[in-house]
Amino acid sequence: MSTVEEQFLARAIALATQNVYDGGGPFGALIVTPDGRAFEGANRVTANNDPTAHAEVMAIRNACSSLGTFDLTGCTLYTSCEPCPLCLAAALWARVDSISFAADRHDAAKAGFDDAVFYEFFEAPVAERSMQVRQMELPDSASAEPFRAWADLPDRIDY
Amino acid sequence: MSTVEEQFLARAIALATQNVYDGGGPFGALIVTPDGRAFEGANRVTANNDPTAHAEVMAIRNACSSLGTFDLTGCTLYTSCEPCPLCLAAALWARVDSISFAADRHDAAKAGFDDAVFYEFFEAPVAERSMQVRQMELPDSASAEPFRAWADLPDRIDY
Repeated sequence: MSTVEEQFLARAIALATQNVYDGGGPFGALIVTPDGRAFEGANRVTANNDPTAHAEVMAIRNACSSLGTFDLTGCTLYTSCEPCPLCLAAALWARVDSISFAADRHDAAKAGFDDAVFYEFFEAPVAERSMQVRQMELPDSASAEPFRAWADLPDRIDY
Repeated sequence: MSTVEEQFLARAIALATQNVYDGGGPFGALIVTPDGRAFEGANRVTANNDPTAHAEVMAIRNACSSLGTFDLTGCTLYTSCEPCPLCLAAALWARVDSISFAADRHDAAKAGFDDAVFYEFFEAPVAERSMQVRQMELPDSASAEPFRAWADLPDRIDY
């Protein structure tokens, strides 16, 4: 006898396994609304030529598109594997309430995926990072221009 | 007289400003290939009901879709504002070489965006986090099932 949460997580795992046979990566996820509606996603990175098409991102996009919103407040994200930094940040921006996962970043690493490596990137000193991320100084404080336009817009939609 | 890099960054800023008037957030970005082709993106979170439609993610998707690849090795990402954790992780997964940005996370915070807050989320102790992220123990090591299917797949495409 399993709980509702275990059933949602089992569904995420079943999606992940099926997705391997459908040409995607071994990851599946669901967004579940407070009233129990579920929106599914599976990893389509190589299938869609989209490095952001992780299972959690696909589930979030599916839920938002279906519900006509960019805000998933109150929803839970169930995922077959601990969200990588991309998916964790996507969940934060989507304002989901909580995340439940099955396998973790170390299981993903054993299967050949860089989730754990990329968490370490976030924690590494800037000088030791594998990818350079640098600020360029521009003349005339040009960098502030988009934010000035945003501040001046009377009917802007905040998020 | 501006460098090529400054010109790409100026283009990202121009995209960001124009995007405000086109119903999007104040962010723009470009992926530039080693041979100088540029693929643009702008923030469409509220316009597309997609919380992952950040400028950098849109530029990466655009470049990958146009080039027919999920791997942007050798490319540079230019963005009007420091990439948030979502966009930084997207750039890592896309394997871009480097990122150059204009405004930073603190400028974004002043304009009302949570980029800096979400960076702090990554650094916070788990117990102090605003969103719960937890592993559930499942019976029969079901969580390893998708990775077993993946390992057994003879023609899998690694990424």
